[in-house]
Amino acid sequence: MTPLEKNPLKPSNKMAEKIDIRMKGFQKRISVEAFYALIDSKAVINPAEMIPVTECYDRILAETLFSPSNVPNFNRSAMDGYAVKGEETFGASNYNPISFKIRGRVTPGQRFDGELQKGETLQIMTGAPLPKGADAVLMAEYAEQVGEQMQALEAVAPGKHIGTIGEDIQTGETLFSKGRRIRPQDSAVLASVGISAVPVVRKPTIDLLITGDELLKPGETPAGVKIVDSNSVLLRHCIKRDGGIVSNIRHLPDERDLIQKTLLASHADIVCISGGTAVGVEDFAPILVQELGELLVHGVSIRPASPTGFGVINRRLIFLLPGNPVSCLSAYDFFVARALRILGGRHLQWPYRQISLKLGTNISSQTGRVDYVRIQIKDKRAFLIATSGAAILSSTTKADGFLVIPEASEGYAEGKTVDIWLYDQ
Amino acid sequence: MTPLEKNPLKPSNKMAEKIDIRMKGFQKRISVEAFYALIDSKAVINPAEMIPVTECYDRILAETLFSPSNVPNFNRSAMDGYAVKGEETFGASNYNPISFKIRGRVTPGQRFDGELQKGETLQIMTGAPLPKGADAVLMAEYAEQVGEQMQALEAVAPGKHIGTIGEDIQTGETLFSKGRRIRPQDSAVLASVGISAVPVVRKPTIDLLITGDELLKPGETPAGVKIVDSNSVLLRHCIKRDGGIVSNIRHLPDERDLIQKTLLASHADIVCISGGTAVGVEDFAPILVQELGELLVHGVSIRPASPTGFGVINRRLIFLLPGNPVSCLSAYDFFVARALRILGGRHLQWPYRQISLKLGTNISSQTGRVDYVRIQIKDKRAFLIATSGAAILSSTTKADGFLVIPEASEGYAEGKTVDIWLYDQ
Repeated sequence: MTPLEKNPLKPSNKMAEKIDIRMKGFQKRISVEAFYALIDSKAVINPAEMIPVTECYDRILAETLFSPSNVPNFNRSAMDGYAVKGEETFGASNYNPISFKIRGRVTPGQRFDGELQKGETLQIMTGAPLPKGADAVLMAEYAEQVGEQMQALEAVAPGKHIGTIGEDIQTGETLFSKGRRIRPQDSAVLASVGISAVPVVRKPTIDLLITGDELLKPGETPAGVKIVDSNSVLLRHCIKRDGGIVSNIRHLPDERDLIQKTLLASHADIVCISGGTAVGVEDFAPILVQELGELLVHGVSIRPASPTGFGVINRRLIFLLPGNPVSCLSAYDFFVARALRILGGRHLQWPYRQISLKLGTNISSQTGRVDYVRIQIKDKRAFLIATSGAAILSSTTKADGFLVIPEASEGYAEGKTVDIWLYDQ
Repeated sequence: MTPLEKNPLKPSNKMAEKIDIRMKGFQKRISVEAFYALIDSKAVINPAEMIPVTECYDRILAETLFSPSNVPNFNRSAMDGYAVKGEETFGASNYNPISFKIRGRVTPGQRFDGELQKGETLQIMTGAPLPKGADAVLMAEYAEQVGEQMQALEAVAPGKHIGTIGEDIQTGETLFSKGRRIRPQDSAVLASVGISAVPVVRKPTIDLLITGDELLKPGETPAGVKIVDSNSVLLRHCIKRDGGIVSNIRHLPDERDLIQKTLLASHADIVCISGGTAVGVEDFAPILVQELGELLVHGVSIRPASPTGFGVINRRLIFLLPGNPVSCLSAYDFFVARALRILGGRHLQWPYRQISLKLGTNISSQTGRVDYVRIQIKDKRAFLIATSGAAILSSTTKADGFLVIPEASEGYAEGKTVDIWLYDQ
């Protein structure tokens, strides 16, 4: 217990000119849409970095890429069988086999240096270069080997079972456009044309500053009036999912100078401060952002997560996240994730699937405020989670997903079909 | 070029008893469903391992977990404001403020040791423990501080803005059932109850044996008759996506002894051999599996990927994947990924979204065979990719997704609505 302080902050001169909102409540809340517009105006895509082609899956291409080579860069067999001149097999059948002399065998990675003459063939494996003098491959299934002779049991048309130069990819061809999220098969194409390093958007880095005298670190056991920080665990995993890198996690007591020092020492693209962001006397974060940079948002028309804040210090994006875990998740998904995706060059959609369901209950909402409502699905109908306060993290684990009720809505009646975002992908 | 060998393999006695299928074509192809049944009979979920709660996102829970503690484990304030006995505020309003003496302030992590008496209040922050003698919190917005007095401007009912012991999670409560795929918020719940290590299904390990004299390693430049191995890049990224660990990647020439030695030296749960798996003379893999263990599948009624094989050596699952990259992708997604998901305790669904679209073209298919058809979407209609051989990897990068035509179908007519799997999640 701390004795009552009348001026617990001893504000600097610079601070004194600004408004101290602590213990007075939020003056005015910004709409979610207006907050989005502010994020979009401040968040800029990260520069490119080169990474090995073997590591580029799920990264975002920073440049349009063109092929430096043909794939394949030689004519090759598409089957295991015999290289022939197609017209020499015309008329061949089981009843009328046509005989060829086998000159040898060519497997992938080898080249037959000679040229096939009339009546000659070469055993050829899938992917091996086609020898001179051949223009088709007779599949092994339609041939019989007798000593050094091959009996063709079927005719094969010229050009059949041949992969021609550049049939897959041609030199100079556009491979992928800037902004492409690289699929497994994309990375394989990049390797096959001989690209070893891939220009991708540098992953956004995020520092997490978890403030609160009451907090134990994850992995510790809750005891007495201490609780375990769960927000850093929540955030690190959301950030990982959304293509960011958690560069630093610091647990700090509610000490203004320490928070300030840590905030100024950050080299991350984004800093998230969890806790100490509202209007309580120990809520230093908004004032620090106001003093050290620009506090653009403090208080949002959304529930939960209304005490969310946003600002900029030295071009670094600073998010003030409520300490309550459900608010923290909501604030992350609505606001931090948006900035993270813009910096990372990713599309802005949530990583959740959406399904349409009928409501099994009435849901009321206040107009002028977005509601983030946890939903349970029973018998293909959507119901509210019974206990759903901002502090009840288990509401997000018992829920199957959530519903976003827009600002203009007063809620929905039972039986209405709504779009539910599913937590499980 | 290699001179023709009549008996290139010099089979052992044991081998000689078995059938050498090389250069004779596949005798009989197994159906996709029968292959699934074989995989399901041989693949067993991996044992559990303990990992830190800070690393458990997206892992599969190996045991049902129960809470060792209450969250919160003390009554706490849900708001910034003033701890009061609710009934003492009855009648308070802007016009009739009721005055309380402020005994001090309590912030989260602290405890007020005394007990509030009649007419007394305590400044209390969200998350701080409720002092004795109080049963409600008056929000800061509805109070005015004048010196050491607080003026209540609104009444607050007993119990209001209080989080009670165990309101989020109760001791002994089931947290998550075995098999749960851990969400970010799940990991946060685990941290909040004080769980530091989480029992999860050990990730399956996979060794990749990439065989072929013609292959250069990813990152190298294709030249002459050499091509770059792209299958290892494809597979490593698919495996990462599907929750596996690539434990080893070996590039080997088509040398029987070397492949055998590497195969026997593996400690992985699964070995994928890419290339050398069909019926060409350099295709040692099926024979090796037959000799060293049990070759259960060789040849599948699917296109592409028909030369896929499957076997078991010392309980290790061995997949023989065609060298052609599209076949490799198809064989991976249909068969390897299924085994990987069973070992990893994951659901068997593909990680692709499905949408319904009308076909913009006829698609024919052979009955008795599953077809994996790459699809491009134009004007909300599905079209075939123009160049779509098994060797044309770019068909999978130019495609938006794919269509699976079941064994019993002869194909679909233009205008039919079909379900397309989208490559992009």
